[in-house]
Amino acid sequence: MVHIMDETAFENLRNLVETKQYKALRDELVDMAYADIAEFIMSIDEPQTSVTVFRILPKDSSADVFAYLDTDRQAEIIELFTDREIERLMDDLFVDDAVDLLEEVPASVVKRILENTDKETREVINKILEYPENSAGSVMTIEMVELHDRLTVGEAIKNIRRTGVDKETIYTCYVIDDKRHLVGTIPLRRLILNDEDVPLTEIMSDDEQLIFVRTLDDQEEVASIAKKYDLLSVPVVDKENRLVGIITIDDIVDIIDDEATEDFEKMASLRPSEDEYLKTNVLTLAKNRMPWLLILMISSTFTGQIIEGFENQLAAIAGLTACIPMLMGTGGNSGSQASTLIIRGLALGEIKIKDYFRVLWKEIRVSVICGAVLALANWVRMLILRAVTGGDTSNSVILVVCLSLLCVVIVAKMMGCTLPIIAKLLKLDPALMTGPVMSTVVDAVSLLIYFALTSVFITKGL
Amino acid sequence: MVHIMDETAFENLRNLVETKQYKALRDELVDMAYADIAEFIMSIDEPQTSVTVFRILPKDSSADVFAYLDTDRQAEIIELFTDREIERLMDDLFVDDAVDLLEEVPASVVKRILENTDKETREVINKILEYPENSAGSVMTIEMVELHDRLTVGEAIKNIRRTGVDKETIYTCYVIDDKRHLVGTIPLRRLILNDEDVPLTEIMSDDEQLIFVRTLDDQEEVASIAKKYDLLSVPVVDKENRLVGIITIDDIVDIIDDEATEDFEKMASLRPSEDEYLKTNVLTLAKNRMPWLLILMISSTFTGQIIEGFENQLAAIAGLTACIPMLMGTGGNSGSQASTLIIRGLALGEIKIKDYFRVLWKEIRVSVICGAVLALANWVRMLILRAVTGGDTSNSVILVVCLSLLCVVIVAKMMGCTLPIIAKLLKLDPALMTGPVMSTVVDAVSLLIYFALTSVFITKGL
Repeated sequence: MVHIMDETAFENLRNLVETKQYKALRDELVDMAYADIAEFIMSIDEPQTSVTVFRILPKDSSADVFAYLDTDRQAEIIELFTDREIERLMDDLFVDDAVDLLEEVPASVVKRILENTDKETREVINKILEYPENSAGSVMTIEMVELHDRLTVGEAIKNIRRTGVDKETIYTCYVIDDKRHLVGTIPLRRLILNDEDVPLTEIMSDDEQLIFVRTLDDQEEVASIAKKYDLLSVPVVDKENRLVGIITIDDIVDIIDDEATEDFEKMASLRPSEDEYLKTNVLTLAKNRMPWLLILMISSTFTGQIIEGFENQLAAIAGLTACIPMLMGTGGNSGSQASTLIIRGLALGEIKIKDYFRVLWKEIRVSVICGAVLALANWVRMLILRAVTGGDTSNSVILVVCLSLLCVVIVAKMMGCTLPIIAKLLKLDPALMTGPVMSTVVDAVSLLIYFALTSVFITKGL
Repeated sequence: MVHIMDETAFENLRNLVETKQYKALRDELVDMAYADIAEFIMSIDEPQTSVTVFRILPKDSSADVFAYLDTDRQAEIIELFTDREIERLMDDLFVDDAVDLLEEVPASVVKRILENTDKETREVINKILEYPENSAGSVMTIEMVELHDRLTVGEAIKNIRRTGVDKETIYTCYVIDDKRHLVGTIPLRRLILNDEDVPLTEIMSDDEQLIFVRTLDDQEEVASIAKKYDLLSVPVVDKENRLVGIITIDDIVDIIDDEATEDFEKMASLRPSEDEYLKTNVLTLAKNRMPWLLILMISSTFTGQIIEGFENQLAAIAGLTACIPMLMGTGGNSGSQASTLIIRGLALGEIKIKDYFRVLWKEIRVSVICGAVLALANWVRMLILRAVTGGDTSNSVILVVCLSLLCVVIVAKMMGCTLPIIAKLLKLDPALMTGPVMSTVVDAVSLLIYFALTSVFITKGL
């Protein structure tokens, strides 16, 4: 790509700030993309200086730049704003960005912001703040193009030209009736490509094609609908089917990233975090990690007890103990390979609950192949190791380890594909079923298989 | 959400097919969204029947529906098509969809398709097929709105109305000069909101604001640019800065999902797969899983040797062996918690290499807190266990296990945040540095710490 703005460019801009060449700075800034201006402002350490830069921006772009800032920096800047500046900012910000801001700043600042917001916007914001976290209502914005179902294409375009500048997107327009019920959608594209006197009702998508979410639907649902139907924005309706807002593709992309991050975290035995890593404080990071670490540590009591119960044999038979980590490790890895694929497939909608038996049958065959290859490789490995180190590992120990390996891989993979689907059936999050739960169960099962086979092939033969 | 199409609706449609009520079926289909029609066609088992349904579709929507089908089903359908039908389909398909199709079908079908494609399209397709996998060139399409830099807004809109129906998107228009160099971009929104006689050059984004990728840039780069600047499409230029294609947001969303899936797979010690799980055959699944399972199994020779070297002490001191899985497990979990957060942060651009020392300092503090809490909890756990089972675990063993736990957690978290950043520095993929590498190194280090502390506190005291 073209590196639009690099560290040197930012350095030059910071020089202009330090030497107070505000005219030259402004000339540079007006040519830059909003996202780059925001990045530049965030590269300034001193809040007072970033406010100065912010004030230099042309009035019509300052809200756009503001929306690209981190919420931390937004909060810093807004605390230094005058009431008049807050008022103008709140006028220009889209409601979804305003809501994001209010969710992050301290209560005292919230109060100042709401005092300087006009009544109508304040009421809308308060309503959106009431929707549960991660619901469609909580992430929507209200600046959409609404067209009355009595309009023609020409009238609609005139309407958009008049009001479009304040809308978050004009590329999908929403057709409503007298009672604000959503009755159809029209992409701007279709308006442009049709003649002026065509009535909207003739060219809008309606009936089965009318795609929307409800305020309380989960944001994950919004993302999957947008992906399925390739939408640039998803309309949100209330219980009475009245249009209350839209969610635009840029926010949907953020939702997709957030949901993937949440799955990554759950699969690594972490409690999902609210914030970016660098912005999360040490105590919160520790708190997000403790629960699973504790649960897993305590549940390892079982594996400990299994080993304890077998301690005499382990002490008596050479080479037996040394293979425990390998067996448990291979079991854990095999299981998490399977569960990761299933969890991701479920998340993307590529695998459904009804596919379970197809999946299981696949995993059984895959695990037999993997297990057999691993057992063979392990047999060679142990023979070489015995030859090189001159150890006294017996042939029956080698046999038992190889057999255990085969069984462990098969069982681990069967559990790896089953646990996420059970979670889904129970309406739990499948992502919780890898790392943490998997490894505990697989560890215990691996040991039991190992010791059972040892009993059958060695101890009984002793 | 409203469930636009459910199994019952599909069942009804399938009934119409079986009873050959094609007129009624067509009436149902024209009211459905393309994605739903495609889903319905994919729910039909018999290829010949799905072709019949496909033929019932109105001519102007069949290519749109086709693009939503799985490549497997596309290949099945196209094999049953007449030459005439292939020709019409290739006329109507966007080039990026045509390329996706050609990459999947068998060579004989590729030949038939290209024979029934007009020369110009064929040349474009062949060129795109030559770009390396996952490059911007390989995922772009060529149906974009190009506007000459001498046009006015009114002329531009007239141009779009004339040609727009064949474009993949008209919402961002690209301004080119006589030599097809990309000189600016204009969102359709800005065209609509400006007066007809304004020259494009006056309102287009240019200079620093001109954002594009080159044909050989990685698709990940395309996604990160689109996210940073909230673009609906990203222009692709060749070495001479000539506009050659665009990548639209729906494809960018797919790229984001694919890249996340790849990271999930790498972090679960899997070789990234080309295809969805259910479409991948057993042998390929096994092949993707074997390499890391083998490497990890063989590398467990180290942990085995460490245990072997300590076997006498393990046999002599009660309770020592039983704690090995707990220590290794906690180490592995602690490490992967840290590395997952860092890898995801690096992938989303939230963490940069230069942040390393901030990250390390954070992890050290987090790990001291986590380690201390775990050690304390473990102390209580072992005391209770001894009391309940009447075991003979000595106080010094309990002390050593708790101390080891603290050290293991600290070391694991330091490694967890360091390895991904080292990978990034070496231009390797950070995602490879969790699961596989981490667990092997952490396992070995955990054991070494455990046995070293045992030597210091117990064996020497014996």
